[in-house]
Amino acid sequence: MSRLDGFIRRLEAQRACLGRAAELIREIDGVVLELGLGNGRTYDHLRSLLPDRAIYVCERQVAAHPLCIPPADMLLLGDMRTTLPAARPWLDGRVALAHLDAGSGDEAANRALAAELTPLIVPLLGAGAVLATDPPLASAELEALPLPGGVAPGRYHLYRRVS
Amino acid sequence: MSRLDGFIRRLEAQRACLGRAAELIREIDGVVLELGLGNGRTYDHLRSLLPDRAIYVCERQVAAHPLCIPPADMLLLGDMRTTLPAARPWLDGRVALAHLDAGSGDEAANRALAAELTPLIVPLLGAGAVLATDPPLASAELEALPLPGGVAPGRYHLYRRVS
Repeated sequence: MSRLDGFIRRLEAQRACLGRAAELIREIDGVVLELGLGNGRTYDHLRSLLPDRAIYVCERQVAAHPLCIPPADMLLLGDMRTTLPAARPWLDGRVALAHLDAGSGDEAANRALAAELTPLIVPLLGAGAVLATDPPLASAELEALPLPGGVAPGRYHLYRRVS
Repeated sequence: MSRLDGFIRRLEAQRACLGRAAELIREIDGVVLELGLGNGRTYDHLRSLLPDRAIYVCERQVAAHPLCIPPADMLLLGDMRTTLPAARPWLDGRVALAHLDAGSGDEAANRALAAELTPLIVPLLGAGAVLATDPPLASAELEALPLPGGVAPGRYHLYRRVS
């Protein structure tokens, strides 16, 4: 499999998982949390899937496509290791869907960042909230969900907050 | 259609066109010319499709994935507006397949660059050579080829050198 093939499969897996996550939270109140904006493609996809949800976006420094820049009052600007703890007073338990795409090509670095962020993300999730993520996460409060058809195990990940 | 959907369709179109181009040149001698390396994904795909062909790669400054960096003697390093004319003495008419992905998100800039590069690329193509390209090209020496099934008109382009 070439790197072009692998990249396409990863994007298809990401899209399938976001679509499944959006279905899974249909009966759950809460906001969406995009953990990393990047070029804004998945932010754009989330707002097309969930036009009636508030979408908060974490980003260190916005460098997205001009049409994919969130309103200023929906941006948590800065390092997530700082902004997520700072958001707890108003965001704890209010997130219905979170999406984490660490986004660098360095898988080891992505996993290390994910491990560091997991305890900062989990308290923000409401009961039954769904987390779609590129790197795998480990937490007693998260259960892995089955992936949509066609998504190979490990290519993307879905979790639900269970406690 | 979200920008994630659009991006996936563009990559699928690119892959389908490269696959078709590789089939079309099966009976034609010649080398491959990758016009722009970027992260190296399509270079990697081309070498998986055409393992027995020499693949020359134009790039201003190599910043690809470590596994997708061409051998130094296959690199035409610098601005294509300089390196393509400089390659004419040894490359004229020797290219069986060329691929151009201008790669920036700025469609107008991509088209302008493509227009500037077209007269520099065409002399390098052998008779019947195929050119796969993201931006459309216009040249009396190129005829547009039908796109593979599933590729919407205008999403990617295939041409053959006819004179």
